[in-house]
Amino acid sequence: MNPLNPSFARDVADSFARQPIMELIGARLSLVEPGVVEITLPYRTDLLQQNGYLHAGIITTIADSACGYAAYTLMPAGSNVLSVEFKLNLLRPAQGEIFVARADVIKPGRTLTVVRADVFAITGDDKVLVATMQGTMIRTDAG
Amino acid sequence: MNPLNPSFARDVADSFARQPIMELIGARLSLVEPGVVEITLPYRTDLLQQNGYLHAGIITTIADSACGYAAYTLMPAGSNVLSVEFKLNLLRPAQGEIFVARADVIKPGRTLTVVRADVFAITGDDKVLVATMQGTMIRTDAG
Amino acid sequence: MNPLNPSFARDVADSFARQPIMELIGARLSLVEPGVVEITLPYRTDLLQQNGYLHAGIITTIADSACGYAAYTLMPAGSNVLSVEFKLNLLRPAQGEIFVARADVIKPGRTLTVVRADVFAITGDDKVLVATMQGTMIRTDAG
Amino acid sequence: MNPLNPSFARDVADSFARQPIMELIGARLSLVEPGVVEITLPYRTDLLQQNGYLHAGIITTIADSACGYAAYTLMPAGSNVLSVEFKLNLLRPAQGEIFVARADVIKPGRTLTVVRADVFAITGDDKVLVATMQGTMIRTDAG
Repeated sequence: MNPLNPSFARDVADSFARQPIMELIGARLSLVEPGVVEITLPYRTDLLQQNGYLHAGIITTIADSACGYAAYTLMPAGSNVLSVEFKLNLLRPAQGEIFVARADVIKPGRTLTVVRADVFAITGDDKVLVATMQGTMIRTDAG
Repeated sequence: MNPLNPSFARDVADSFARQPIMELIGARLSLVEPGVVEITLPYRTDLLQQNGYLHAGIITTIADSACGYAAYTLMPAGSNVLSVEFKLNLLRPAQGEIFVARADVIKPGRTLTVVRADVFAITGDDKVLVATMQGTMIRTDAG
Repeated sequence: MNPLNPSFARDVADSFARQPIMELIGARLSLVEPGVVEITLPYRTDLLQQNGYLHAGIITTIADSACGYAAYTLMPAGSNVLSVEFKLNLLRPAQGEIFVARADVIKPGRTLTVVRADVFAITGDDKVLVATMQGTMIRTDAG
Repeated sequence: MNPLNPSFARDVADSFARQPIMELIGARLSLVEPGVVEITLPYRTDLLQQNGYLHAGIITTIADSACGYAAYTLMPAGSNVLSVEFKLNLLRPAQGEIFVARADVIKPGRTLTVVRADVFAITGDDKVLVATMQGTMIRTDAG
């Protein structure tokens, strides 16, 4: 997939840095390529739900942002991206040392882009798929 | 809908108190009735995304937990509840002083319970629907 | 909700009549109001799956079209409507004499409209909710 | 993925043959392997919606059944499978000579199995992804 915006990587990094929620939970951008973005989140006890697993909403936080930025990498310069909708299936308990949400664009579009994200829990050499998201992102003009 | 667990309200409150993520973001349980749960989240700048709206993942955090607990209110004592899947549609920018996720059970079941949650942004007397979730919760035996 | 297209009801009926699939399965338009559309489908053995229930794809066929037309009732004259995505939860076995999909617009928009549809199975005086859909419809210019 | 039911392929074929809806629309089972099922549907004018595309409900009919049978291939003998929920994103106009829904199990489980299905439109040598589904299937005991 060919990026229309030559500075897509820097623009994604700039936008990510303007998301206070990412700092609150300790997430960082770990990969930005055309149509693909990864966000990495180290385990922290204050992100858990009542069973000691990463809360589904926090899984969603990194998966949704990875989807939005994956869509953004293929948009023209000066675009803004928002989530229209997403669906998340939780596959296994989200337990691990590090969580990685990897988003891949399935179908780019002028207005709507469909993206999939897989979320992995990593413990040592072990990498387990814990959730998968299918979502729609919309391009709007930057404000 | 008739609760099978006479102490459902206390059990929901106890479980909510064991969710560190709720303390991190500042959410609190504001209503627990048979088949209905509300979670309230005051606006905070550290919960926002790059446009200044509440991040979709944080909307999901309160909506998903409201769904899980709404399902839980109708389960037998000693149950544990987990999310199977959910889908969220984002309807309007999530801007307001307070956000409320209200979940209503659509179809309770012995194993699976289907729940809907509406998330409202409240500013003074103004209450706007900003997102809506449709999800499936599963009952497991408590560990 | 105020219709922008004064002939929305006739336009929906005309479009419905141009859907060959509706004739194949025996569905008919039973209600068209601003933001609300119902499609009715009598039971037929050739619409069933292996357990004798109405196939989830046929439930979807009437629910999705009801959603599309409910969105259409609030669009300007000359619009075309397509489905972006939908999610269906199956709540109970789809058994009955008549099935009715009722769609209600949750959030109309210039481009995207979010709609919910409930599908009921009716047997005599008994009306049971068998499935519920949450979906996104898009307005395109008519070709 | 290892099948627990040595006669899974025959059992899927038998079940498919008991779905009257598949005969009505002209769908046939074209691949059955452990964790993977394909259903093929030739173009027919009576399956179209108002723009001349295959109706999203018919796309769903083959995608959902492919998902159910893909899940079934990994279940013990004597199982019954039902759809819990699915979400479909429509990516491109569903136009072609033949449509193929290919389902792959993402996460098998004792009770719930998560499956993805891609639906392709094929015209001569051209194969285009027109829709993608993410869904949950449940195992019940055969009646």
